[in-house]
Parts: sequence; C-alpha cells; structure tokens
Amino acid sequence: MLYLIGLGLGDATDITVKGLQAVKSCSRVYLEAYTSILTVGKEALEEYYGKQLILADRNLVEQGADEILKDADVTDVGFLVVGDPFGATTHSDLVLRAVNAGIPYKVIHNASIMNAVGCCGLQLYNFGETVSVVFWTETWRPESFYDKICKNRAAGLHTLCLLDIKVKEQSIENMMRGKKIYEPPRFMTVSQAADQLIQIIQRRREEGGELGVTEDTVCVGLARLGADDQVIRTGMLHQLVSYDLGGPLHSLVVTARLHPLEVDMLRVNAEPDALQHLRMIDSSTYTS
Amino acid sequence: MLYLIGLGLGDATDITVKGLQAVKSCSRVYLEAYTSILTVGKEALEEYYGKQLILADRNLVEQGADEILKDADVTDVGFLVVGDPFGATTHSDLVLRAVNAGIPYKVIHNASIMNAVGCCGLQLYNFGETVSVVFWTETWRPESFYDKICKNRAAGLHTLCLLDIKVKEQSIENMMRGKKIYEPPRFMTVSQAADQLIQIIQRRREEGGELGVTEDTVCVGLARLGADDQVIRTGMLHQLVSYDLGGPLHSLVVTARLHPLEVDMLRVNAEPDALQHLRMIDSSTYTS
Repeated sequence: MLYLIGLGLGDATDITVKGLQAVKSCSRVYLEAYTSILTVGKEALEEYYGKQLILADRNLVEQGADEILKDADVTDVGFLVVGDPFGATTHSDLVLRAVNAGIPYKVIHNASIMNAVGCCGLQLYNFGETVSVVFWTETWRPESFYDKICKNRAAGLHTLCLLDIKVKEQSIENMMRGKKIYEPPRFMTVSQAADQLIQIIQRRREEGGELGVTEDTVCVGLARLGADDQVIRTGMLHQLVSYDLGGPLHSLVVTARLHPLEVDMLRVNAEPDALQHLRMIDSSTYTS
Repeated sequence: MLYLIGLGLGDATDITVKGLQAVKSCSRVYLEAYTSILTVGKEALEEYYGKQLILADRNLVEQGADEILKDADVTDVGFLVVGDPFGATTHSDLVLRAVNAGIPYKVIHNASIMNAVGCCGLQLYNFGETVSVVFWTETWRPESFYDKICKNRAAGLHTLCLLDIKVKEQSIENMMRGKKIYEPPRFMTVSQAADQLIQIIQRRREEGGELGVTEDTVCVGLARLGADDQVIRTGMLHQLVSYDLGGPLHSLVVTARLHPLEVDMLRVNAEPDALQHLRMIDSSTYTS
C-alpha cells in the first residue's frame, strides 16, 4: 500500500492520529521536501515518529518514482507531504504510476493553506481562483497573476496568492556546466510579493491602464499558519511591503468585496492605519 | 483558552495529534453538529477521546455563545468542528465574541472538503468559486448556483458544489405553532443535486437560453471523503442522477477545461460510459 499522508501546517503534532498510525506501519517513509515546509525540520519529525525519513526532492519524485514505489505491493510505503497530499500536481503523477503498477493507495488528508486561510476571517466560499506569485528574474517578469487577481476582484472574490519556493535549484551557470551545486533555498515573503504587485500597478498606471488592484487594496499577510508563532496581519497593499512577518512560509490574500462579518474578523489582526481604513469600508460600496 | 479544533473528514482518528491533546486538556468540549457530520457519531468520538461531548446545534452556537464561552478565560474550552473550524461563517461569530470578551483563542486546523476534494484528481488551483446547492421546495427553487458554475466554467475553472444539510429543522407548520418538533435530518445526495441541475438545464433550454453546463458535462460525485468507504465516481451529469453513492456526506464537482493529467486521474474512478467520453476529450478543445 502506498500511503499519501498530509502533515498539515505547523509542527510534528499536526499530523492526524490516522496518519501517525500509518507512518508507524510503513517500512519506508519519504518526506516530500520541495513544494512546502513545516516550521520544524526532518530531524524533529524523525524523532517524533521514531522513524528514519528519506528526503524526496523534485528529482526523486519526478524521475525516481519507481524507487519510491518499489515493493509497495507487498509492503507499506509512506509519502509525507506538508499540508494535504493533493496540493501539488506532481503527486497526481505518483498516484497514477501506483495505479498503473497495480499498487493500492490511500490518502490521509490534512489541512493545507487552501482551507486554513479561512482563519484570517475571510469566508472560503468568497475566494476565487488561487494564484501563484513567482520570483521575478531580470529577464522574466510575468504579470498573469495580477490579471487573475483583478478578475477575481471584479467578481467580488478574494484571491489566495501562494508565494514562490525555490528549493535545491541550480543557477543557470551551474546547470550549463553540469555542476550539481544548488542555490540556498529561497521563500518569497509577503513583503516581496507586495513589492512585485506594486511594481505591476505602477507600470500599468504609467501605461494608463485600468487598475483592478491598487496600493490601497486591503490585503492580508499570513506567515507560518498553524504554528505557535503564526502571524496574520491585515493592511493596505503598500503597507505590507514594509511588514516583516518572519520566517517561511508566507502567503498573501488580496481581498475583494467584504462582508461586514469579514471586516470585523480582519480588524482583529489589522494594523492601526489599516484599521482606520477598514472602519471606513461600507461593504456594499467597497471597491479599492 | 477557546480551542477551535478541526476533526477532519472520516472517523475519530482523523483528528490531529495536537487537536487530540487539546481535547484532553479541556474542561468542557462542544461538538458542532449542524454544518457537517463524520461517518461516526458523538458516542464513538466520546469513547475515543475518553470525554463527554456537548452537542452544539445551530441554536446554541448562534444564541448561546455566552454559555459556550463561560469561564473560557480561566479554563480551556474546546469547540469541535467536522472538517476545518473555518468552513462555516457562524464560527467567525464565535471567535469575535471570544475576542470581544478578552478570551484568547487558538485554531487547530484539519482537512475539509475544500482542500480534500483534490484527491479526485482535479487540481485545486483550477477551481473557481465554491457554490452551495440547496434543497428546493415547492415555492423556492433558486438557480443562482447554476449561473456561478457556468461563470466558473467559462473561465476554465471547476466548481465544488457543497450539498445541502438540514439538521434539526422545523416544518413551517410546527414553527408557526411554536412546537419544538424537528424534522429528521436530510443530506442532499449527488443524485439529487444532479437532478436539480438537469431540471434547470431543461427549463433554460426550453427558454432558448445559452447553456454553460449540459447533461453531458463531466462531473465527479464524492461521498464520505476521507472515510474507509469513501466513493469517488466520475460520469456525465445525466449519469450521476442514477448513481447511489450511499450514506452522507456527498459533494459534487462540475469540471471545466481539463488538463491531460486531470483526465488521467479522473479515469481512475470513471464509469465505463464516462471513461469512453473522457477518452474522447481533447483537453484543449473540451467544452461540454
């Protein structure tokens, strides 16, 4: 049996009881380590489970699936994923390989940012399409996420922005030279994401385009959701640029039309300036 | 401390280790029993936790919040919610009351249908706004969910449809007579939801309107997600009407443009007829 086990968000104790039982029953357990991270590392999990974990980087999951699935028809193999196992496309591929090899699989679900984001006080059924914000490079500055956010807002829907994670990436130079030297991991902060959004806004304003999101749009910065030191801070987009929410992972929510109850909930974690702004919001007319 | 603890989906062992520890530390534990249910009842949870639970119906949560929050500043009170604590609006209200009363609160997240739906093979970031499908009555037959599904589809986004739950509801007659007699609980099935959708489609076709969803649209029926006897079945909407997916809870997904990997995943649980239909799908041209 292949067990795909969600670890939830936070620390080692955020695994479900069912998930922990499955981990203990497995003869081999992989820890997926490139689409998300917990606030605790592999060692803390190993100590908590009383079990060695095998780190599974993108290369192993995408190229070495046979290795992961080896003997899973006769023994139990665990595949641990931070959040819920189906947050990342690449795990559908692993499941399909198992199915095609006649290996039964079982999913043990857990919280992920996709549903836990509700704790900021915005209603989950008021969210539109989720977007990913990627690190810009000098030559690659995609803006499609901005258009999706604007589309959601025009429909009165909030947008959850998943922020880029770069783990075990090679520089172009090292890749071309075939050197297996990896860059240090990078996790986009709320501040960086807000900064990229503002650059898009400024560029489009210069072009005279319509702006579906501005520097004054109310946004929510989230850091380490589910951990003891989680941070939720509500402010206007331009305020978020100067926020330091601490270590990874961060996520950003761009709000749209707000229900009065949502406004009340946002106020719980709002900065003084944003608080004043939220006080002025008449949910029926709120557009900026 | 007020602990809002998600129970996840499935059975008693789907609680997180952190959640279970919190339950055990609480002097009073409520079980929210009207926005969702597990496949096991209150007694099974009580036996598993070694703790009495107080059933919290809508009336208690919305009118008796003071009772729930009593002494929560000096003792630990638990509030258990199937899925994640922030799936239902009404729990924001409880949190706000705690905040206003100076009572600290902590959320212990878990899986909910909002993220666990990913296990059917559709990518979570390809979902649009979530909709609720309510039981029609003779005089009240809202169709707004159909329009939202069509809007999502037009944008290439799948729609998760949450199906109606009626727990501890009074008939209009009993309500008017002030009799506290409650109707038996009702949970909308995938078959019932598909039937209501098809009635809307037929009515609109007669009116000559454009149809964003038809009887041949590929849909996914989900039942008891996360439980050992969970069922996932993919078929065309008209096929789902005759599917019996067993006991509650059910959910329905209306698909939109499909990625080839999503098609492959859907095939794993597809009916023969639907399978043939899925084989014909060219994801780039798929519209029905």
